[in-house]
Amino acid sequence: MSTPKREPAPNRFDTISIRNAPGEHAGDGEGRAPHAGIDFSHGDVGAFPPHPAAVAAVEAAIADGGGQAYSRYRGHWSVREPLAERLAAFTGAPVDPSQEMIITPGTQAGLFLALSSLVGPGDKVMVVEPDYFANRRIVTYLGGEVVPVPLAYEDAAAPAGLDLDRVEAAAAAGAKVLVFSNPNNPTGALLGADQLRRIAATADRHGVFVVTDELYSRLVYPGGTAAHLRACGIAPDRCVTLLGPSKSESLSGFRVGTAIGAPAVIDRMEKLLAIVSLRTAGYNQSALHSWFTEPDGWFAERVAAHRRIRDDLVDVFRGAPGFRVRPTEAGSYLFPRLPRLTVPTAAFVAELRERTGTVVTSGEEFGPRHGHSVRLNFSQDHGRAVAGARAVVETTALLTA
Amino acid sequence: MSTPKREPAPNRFDTISIRNAPGEHAGDGEGRAPHAGIDFSHGDVGAFPPHPAAVAAVEAAIADGGGQAYSRYRGHWSVREPLAERLAAFTGAPVDPSQEMIITPGTQAGLFLALSSLVGPGDKVMVVEPDYFANRRIVTYLGGEVVPVPLAYEDAAAPAGLDLDRVEAAAAAGAKVLVFSNPNNPTGALLGADQLRRIAATADRHGVFVVTDELYSRLVYPGGTAAHLRACGIAPDRCVTLLGPSKSESLSGFRVGTAIGAPAVIDRMEKLLAIVSLRTAGYNQSALHSWFTEPDGWFAERVAAHRRIRDDLVDVFRGAPGFRVRPTEAGSYLFPRLPRLTVPTAAFVAELRERTGTVVTSGEEFGPRHGHSVRLNFSQDHGRAVAGARAVVETTALLTA
Repeated sequence: MSTPKREPAPNRFDTISIRNAPGEHAGDGEGRAPHAGIDFSHGDVGAFPPHPAAVAAVEAAIADGGGQAYSRYRGHWSVREPLAERLAAFTGAPVDPSQEMIITPGTQAGLFLALSSLVGPGDKVMVVEPDYFANRRIVTYLGGEVVPVPLAYEDAAAPAGLDLDRVEAAAAAGAKVLVFSNPNNPTGALLGADQLRRIAATADRHGVFVVTDELYSRLVYPGGTAAHLRACGIAPDRCVTLLGPSKSESLSGFRVGTAIGAPAVIDRMEKLLAIVSLRTAGYNQSALHSWFTEPDGWFAERVAAHRRIRDDLVDVFRGAPGFRVRPTEAGSYLFPRLPRLTVPTAAFVAELRERTGTVVTSGEEFGPRHGHSVRLNFSQDHGRAVAGARAVVETTALLTA
Repeated sequence: MSTPKREPAPNRFDTISIRNAPGEHAGDGEGRAPHAGIDFSHGDVGAFPPHPAAVAAVEAAIADGGGQAYSRYRGHWSVREPLAERLAAFTGAPVDPSQEMIITPGTQAGLFLALSSLVGPGDKVMVVEPDYFANRRIVTYLGGEVVPVPLAYEDAAAPAGLDLDRVEAAAAAGAKVLVFSNPNNPTGALLGADQLRRIAATADRHGVFVVTDELYSRLVYPGGTAAHLRACGIAPDRCVTLLGPSKSESLSGFRVGTAIGAPAVIDRMEKLLAIVSLRTAGYNQSALHSWFTEPDGWFAERVAAHRRIRDDLVDVFRGAPGFRVRPTEAGSYLFPRLPRLTVPTAAFVAELRERTGTVVTSGEEFGPRHGHSVRLNFSQDHGRAVAGARAVVETTALLTA
């Protein structure tokens, strides 16, 4: 005799929709046709390969075997110690490799571990809109209450900015955590040092903890400056900064990243990592050895190549009726606003893929009020990226009134 | 003006103690002296290296680059599809690679994802004692209530067994999940098919979901048989089985594992993985290609070599006054009971390390009532393992009344 199956858990899983998540539609068998066009949902490692030294370091670690397979949960000291110095130089504020740093299985894991360390059921968390889709999902999964903070970015002539009055009011009303990406994902907008100083002041005034995802802060185009919150006056125990080589350095396939900041939060992140997946893959941690130590010019050339692609894609969208786009200041995302369509954005995205093999991510993934836009990761082969952008424009032309 | 810092979250982190966790004391700089002796807290990849095909497959995936960096969150289809067939053959029950399988960043991640998918605050979860230390920690972290289920293993002449009356009573009283390792970590004891059939019947009767960690089920010594719960009559939607090549196949440094079982739970695990760390490192997933396809004799020789070490260690402990040990039936752990000491076990472990450089894990990590024993992972150089076991015996001799 079998009793009826019981629903096994609280349904926070229903809030994690991965159906339209970047990459999930990629055909690799399983009854899905491989797409013939371009996949703007993530960067193309073939177009921008990792620096060979990163690969060589991982292979050397594998060959070393026992010496590299296991590490402290927070990562190999031999990786953390020299990297802390480089990240301190990059971000403009000191990093204690022992107390203020953890190696994470990708920057995504850094985000999950940091927010899990800070957010409990009922906690109010300020989440920027639009912003990386996982921010909202993780907060919701943890039982936190999302307090949206709009990002002004559409006026390309003006600096982007959070609605700081909203931040101040939410913090005064008890919001305890603020999370945002800078450079912003999906818009490629930068928050300047002045914004960050004001955020730091608000955090200080109200005891808010800030998690800032600076995954793209190295890929900055001429005219922009990536300011770092941790160097903008925030108390060192009120901030964690996420950084990693998955995107601009094309090391996503290794799943390595770092979090630097408040020792008490880093401690919690390590404890949680211990039960989540023990540690970042021991061998893969070595991919960090070459990060920020690549030969002169290698990264500069990468920035220049991305800039050329950005410029051409911006031209395509600016030349198309009804489109509006802010040129990327940093990172490899464009978030063009589409002309008014006769179908919902999800239907447009599906039609685009079906018709042209071009994959983009709906703006709805980045904020409930951003279905008017789509995100493109333009870290791609230049020519194919331009063709893909044209396919976006042509498909909208078929779907406008 | 700065307001006092507020405590950022509920203190479930205080329950995750990693201070004495295996590996955490390993010296890799950071002010710690490297230990000169043997580290029984985990296996020695140098003594038992991975099969070269596993390493070659990962290196080929890295070289392939873009084709392998990203996968569906649940893992590359090209890995899952053939592996499902091999795991079906190994466990004796079918595996649908699309619905019933996920690749996880190690078996630890499989455990975290599975329990997170099943356990919410206040849920009663049956946890075996002694058993892998993370089981209890994860349940506690999730807000679940641990219902201990004793494992009888000390009588080496009798089959090991869970206290099934306790399981029945706890299930009748509302416990909804049972988690256990089989082969058992830390004792190396096997639960036989008869036990597993009775567990399946109880699960069916009361709607209990069972998570079984079979990480060591391939390393079985003559006289033992690794039965698999999923082939012992449990409903396919009531069970998830964790398997991985981290231990017996020495691939821990890659962080790859699998979970197979109930589609609804696998779906939740994938959703959670998407926000926890996106996916298992894309390149590393290829380490699974060679798993269960190694040339004839390779794994058999590994079993034989471990058996020889086990036999010598059992002889050392059986010849020492006051020790009691059950010979490992499967896996590479021994869990000898120590003679009555004049100091707490933690002090003994510290003294052993200080005096001889030998690292063992206190039995307290595996259950609050098991401080009388220590765990040794004997997947080590044979000679050094025997010397390390002698160091354990000699150090106890200094600390008995």
